[in-house]
Amino acid sequence: MKKIGVLTSGGDAPGMNPAIRAVVRKAIFSGLEVVGIQRGYSGLIRGEFREMNLSSVADIIYRGGTMLRTARSENFRTPEGRTKAAGNLRSQGIEGLVVIGGDGSFRGAQALGREHGIRFIGVPGTIDNDIPCTDYTIGFDTAVNNVVDAVNKIRDTATSHERTYVIEVMGRNSGFIALEAGLAGGAESILIPEMGVNINDIIEKLERGMQRGKLHSIIIVAEGAGSGIEIGRLIQERTGSETKVTILGHIQRGGTPTSFDRVIASRMGALAVDLLVKGETAKMVGMISGSLKDFDIDYALSQEKTIDRSVYELASILAI
Amino acid sequence: MKKIGVLTSGGDAPGMNPAIRAVVRKAIFSGLEVVGIQRGYSGLIRGEFREMNLSSVADIIYRGGTMLRTARSENFRTPEGRTKAAGNLRSQGIEGLVVIGGDGSFRGAQALGREHGIRFIGVPGTIDNDIPCTDYTIGFDTAVNNVVDAVNKIRDTATSHERTYVIEVMGRNSGFIALEAGLAGGAESILIPEMGVNINDIIEKLERGMQRGKLHSIIIVAEGAGSGIEIGRLIQERTGSETKVTILGHIQRGGTPTSFDRVIASRMGALAVDLLVKGETAKMVGMISGSLKDFDIDYALSQEKTIDRSVYELASILAI
Amino acid sequence: MKKIGVLTSGGDAPGMNPAIRAVVRKAIFSGLEVVGIQRGYSGLIRGEFREMNLSSVADIIYRGGTMLRTARSENFRTPEGRTKAAGNLRSQGIEGLVVIGGDGSFRGAQALGREHGIRFIGVPGTIDNDIPCTDYTIGFDTAVNNVVDAVNKIRDTATSHERTYVIEVMGRNSGFIALEAGLAGGAESILIPEMGVNINDIIEKLERGMQRGKLHSIIIVAEGAGSGIEIGRLIQERTGSETKVTILGHIQRGGTPTSFDRVIASRMGALAVDLLVKGETAKMVGMISGSLKDFDIDYALSQEKTIDRSVYELASILAI
Amino acid sequence: MKKIGVLTSGGDAPGMNPAIRAVVRKAIFSGLEVVGIQRGYSGLIRGEFREMNLSSVADIIYRGGTMLRTARSENFRTPEGRTKAAGNLRSQGIEGLVVIGGDGSFRGAQALGREHGIRFIGVPGTIDNDIPCTDYTIGFDTAVNNVVDAVNKIRDTATSHERTYVIEVMGRNSGFIALEAGLAGGAESILIPEMGVNINDIIEKLERGMQRGKLHSIIIVAEGAGSGIEIGRLIQERTGSETKVTILGHIQRGGTPTSFDRVIASRMGALAVDLLVKGETAKMVGMISGSLKDFDIDYALSQEKTIDRSVYELASILAI
Repeated sequence: MKKIGVLTSGGDAPGMNPAIRAVVRKAIFSGLEVVGIQRGYSGLIRGEFREMNLSSVADIIYRGGTMLRTARSENFRTPEGRTKAAGNLRSQGIEGLVVIGGDGSFRGAQALGREHGIRFIGVPGTIDNDIPCTDYTIGFDTAVNNVVDAVNKIRDTATSHERTYVIEVMGRNSGFIALEAGLAGGAESILIPEMGVNINDIIEKLERGMQRGKLHSIIIVAEGAGSGIEIGRLIQERTGSETKVTILGHIQRGGTPTSFDRVIASRMGALAVDLLVKGETAKMVGMISGSLKDFDIDYALSQEKTIDRSVYELASILAI
Repeated sequence: MKKIGVLTSGGDAPGMNPAIRAVVRKAIFSGLEVVGIQRGYSGLIRGEFREMNLSSVADIIYRGGTMLRTARSENFRTPEGRTKAAGNLRSQGIEGLVVIGGDGSFRGAQALGREHGIRFIGVPGTIDNDIPCTDYTIGFDTAVNNVVDAVNKIRDTATSHERTYVIEVMGRNSGFIALEAGLAGGAESILIPEMGVNINDIIEKLERGMQRGKLHSIIIVAEGAGSGIEIGRLIQERTGSETKVTILGHIQRGGTPTSFDRVIASRMGALAVDLLVKGETAKMVGMISGSLKDFDIDYALSQEKTIDRSVYELASILAI
Repeated sequence: MKKIGVLTSGGDAPGMNPAIRAVVRKAIFSGLEVVGIQRGYSGLIRGEFREMNLSSVADIIYRGGTMLRTARSENFRTPEGRTKAAGNLRSQGIEGLVVIGGDGSFRGAQALGREHGIRFIGVPGTIDNDIPCTDYTIGFDTAVNNVVDAVNKIRDTATSHERTYVIEVMGRNSGFIALEAGLAGGAESILIPEMGVNINDIIEKLERGMQRGKLHSIIIVAEGAGSGIEIGRLIQERTGSETKVTILGHIQRGGTPTSFDRVIASRMGALAVDLLVKGETAKMVGMISGSLKDFDIDYALSQEKTIDRSVYELASILAI
Repeated sequence: MKKIGVLTSGGDAPGMNPAIRAVVRKAIFSGLEVVGIQRGYSGLIRGEFREMNLSSVADIIYRGGTMLRTARSENFRTPEGRTKAAGNLRSQGIEGLVVIGGDGSFRGAQALGREHGIRFIGVPGTIDNDIPCTDYTIGFDTAVNNVVDAVNKIRDTATSHERTYVIEVMGRNSGFIALEAGLAGGAESILIPEMGVNINDIIEKLERGMQRGKLHSIIIVAEGAGSGIEIGRLIQERTGSETKVTILGHIQRGGTPTSFDRVIASRMGALAVDLLVKGETAKMVGMISGSLKDFDIDYALSQEKTIDRSVYELASILAI
């Protein structure tokens, strides 16, 4: 192997830049040439390629987002799009691809590999942490800390007033961010798609707290579990307690990556290069039980990742 | 004068704690006793008083919110409520009051002074910066930095995608936060109640930007100028560009106060004590053109504070 | 078991407060009474005890430091001191102790257990991460992020000038903080006690970098590996490049704990209570490979924790 | 006037980027061409010029440091160097220069103007705030907040231990940063060159505090007032209280600029362009009493800026 490509795909995640840096520098250290592909699969089809050297990734380790940009590509979902993409890789002499992104991005690479024999390794980069075969995805720790930072600020104001605060966070299908940030933020209730939402239970809990003299309550809602605005309205109506809603939206994606995300990004990126050098393909790297491992992409994509119910119960006990 | 009271009222603002600290310590330094009144006028009526000493305010300088809590009091809007409040002050031997809050809080003190001869000095504490006779209110700088921090994070993700982002910030009647944060954050459009909102203009500007190759746009909306969600929906419908909405809500109020807010809070709080000692009453302190001044509360409450249109125009020029 | 005590000992670490909260609330949930012991073993000897209830730990989850304070106790190192401590526990009816601290604190508890049959569980709380039988100690993640935040700021200024920056971080005997923050911060060189310091190698690397056009270099020094000021002086003398030194000192210990530290603190604190309830003693809890486990304290204290050399090498490769 | 140049010179300051952005965009808005000159006067002599357009300054508003870099230039201190610089400006058709920097940078421009008739406007950019004719320099507010953030962190740990903490901050000749951060941070003592240092007074104050039960003390030292390490050593020797020292160094310069710094940078940069357009030269812009003004550079450089002693006294009263 002489030349590899690297791209980021899907929603951007803080830590993608340190992952790109690791891929580029480890590859150069290993004697390879590296090409950066802009805007994910969309740029792969359009041929938005640039040669990367050691300096290309200087001073990106602390930047949020991704220097290679990212985009969705409807075109890549068609066989014709993938044929174009594979052709571009061949004509550039790129023999292996590192794909940094979520499960949708991995499925794209899987198709490209199956249909055109393109070698690739997936690096899990998404704030949602919803990728199987890895305990942590790149960006998750930063996103959770962004939410916790918002909870800190609301706690300052909450201790001054007596109110209920609802914070809607990301997570259309999964409650990983809500659960981790809820435990870390000391939220009174955590609403996640995995556990169902019983508004009566929440209101009962709120009322028990108020009777006990609790001055304020913070409720974290994963977007997949309901609308923050709607839940806030219901609580205010039924408890009579003034209820304020915050929708964090895309500020969860941003900010300089945390140390944890940079470390796993660096390690995962470097391992992806090692695997390509060894001749592996159709794998994803993951961190399981604190160690880096690799998994067949077909296996990984057939698995489902579930939340840890004991953590959910602990959060509930500690936020009595 | 031997004994004074201090309370915070209305919405909490970061910097109220340094202001309380300054009042307490400057008063003790000046040979006075100080009583902290909890929960604003509500606690004043209920007699929620506590003796303050040097240590009562130790280590609060960096805390958001207000250690004295704050609350709304319907009761204080009635003559009976104010009579009860004045009685409590008299029976405690409290001869002067420092009221830290917004214009509603000042009006309450004004009534209390007029009807019962209670001496008071107002210290402007509100994130909204909508109090006349002062260039800055305590909490405004922190709130603006909280918004700018959110814009920073969205900028990270915005440079990776190609989208429009709408951020709804506080300001029901005034656009101070939106304007300052919009200029500092480099927002493409700033929607504030003072200037009216012409959705056609915004969309035209967005489309001009897109044609020119602009990769993303950030729009800041003061809540008084419209609903972020509604504006986001309109933009997406009419431009076809994916539009993401964030409603910052109460995270704007929180967080450790900035240096600027702590400095003006310390100076204003100390001046309020000086004025009481000198026998003044029915005044508010303000920072005008970089200097601390005092103003008759009747005069101050009759004024109107307006935004600086040249700043609005500058923001528009620089965000071409 | 009806009543337990909790104390923090040794250097404070961010995350001790969430650990205390978890101990108190999990204990109350489990039907136990809880006593907070102030100032570690020093307060244990002096009888500085306070009853804890659900509200005692309200709103501490986001505070740095420890609400129970901490102190060193020479007295506790004597048999007489420990006899007094055990007597106080007995007279209060405290049947089990949760000790949150480092290995010195664990050795103290070990002696107390051995000599007086006091039941205890250790919870690893120290920014240094130098405790065996746990991959992470409470406070380490926050400390590393504090260092990385400092590196971010220096990187901003470093990209504007052309200079060498030396940052001295904590770690008298171990390089965990320096290594993790060095990898995450993208430091050009990382000096840690475990690897020895060859100033010639560092200077050679710096000079190679300069010849290659590298605009600036950041060097992280664990205090146990040498004096930042001294190393800065040597580099400046020998390379002629202006060299600036920062000694982070105790700012590494402070700040609101990260989400990660709060989560492990919550989980470890709760597990410590479970172990006491089950009748266990003389154990420490630890997080190994992502799972919570418990270990005999005698075994744990006989082990040695070593850095991961592959991470050191990776940091070196990526900072070419 | 058809074409202007902009450069940053001296130590970098957070907010230089928003100032550059304002110069570039206001100039283009005013129908001018703009050239960015790299590495200050050094690049001016070497001809390191680049054409700037609207996109050149996209997404720099939130970056610390200066995208144009900065450097010292011995060469520019010679008449020959300045002749070369003036020649380069003429050959490029650059008719006016915006110089963003400190007083040394202004003196350089003054000489260039006097000897070669080059038109220029100075914009005060330095964290030290030591430039006359402006209440605030660009970068000062961010630097102070960086120091205050460090004090926050030390306060967390200080409330857990009982110790004295010394923090050395920037300010070789002036105590502006130390004074503002000392007041905002609630430091017990503030040592600045302007007021002299009496170690006996400091120790007496510390001992009075300890007798009164004060648990910890924070002392801020401007580097021009003495060595933090030396002062820490003296305090520890003479009080017996464990004393910890932090040297913040260059982390004070970094980080994303605060809102305040971005706002004044934007306004000052735009005004500098207006002045050039109006045909003005040899002026600096400043913010006096909340308003933007301009001053003859000769007058400004003959003035001296002094600290506000009433603020120093207030800090002392409030930190009893």
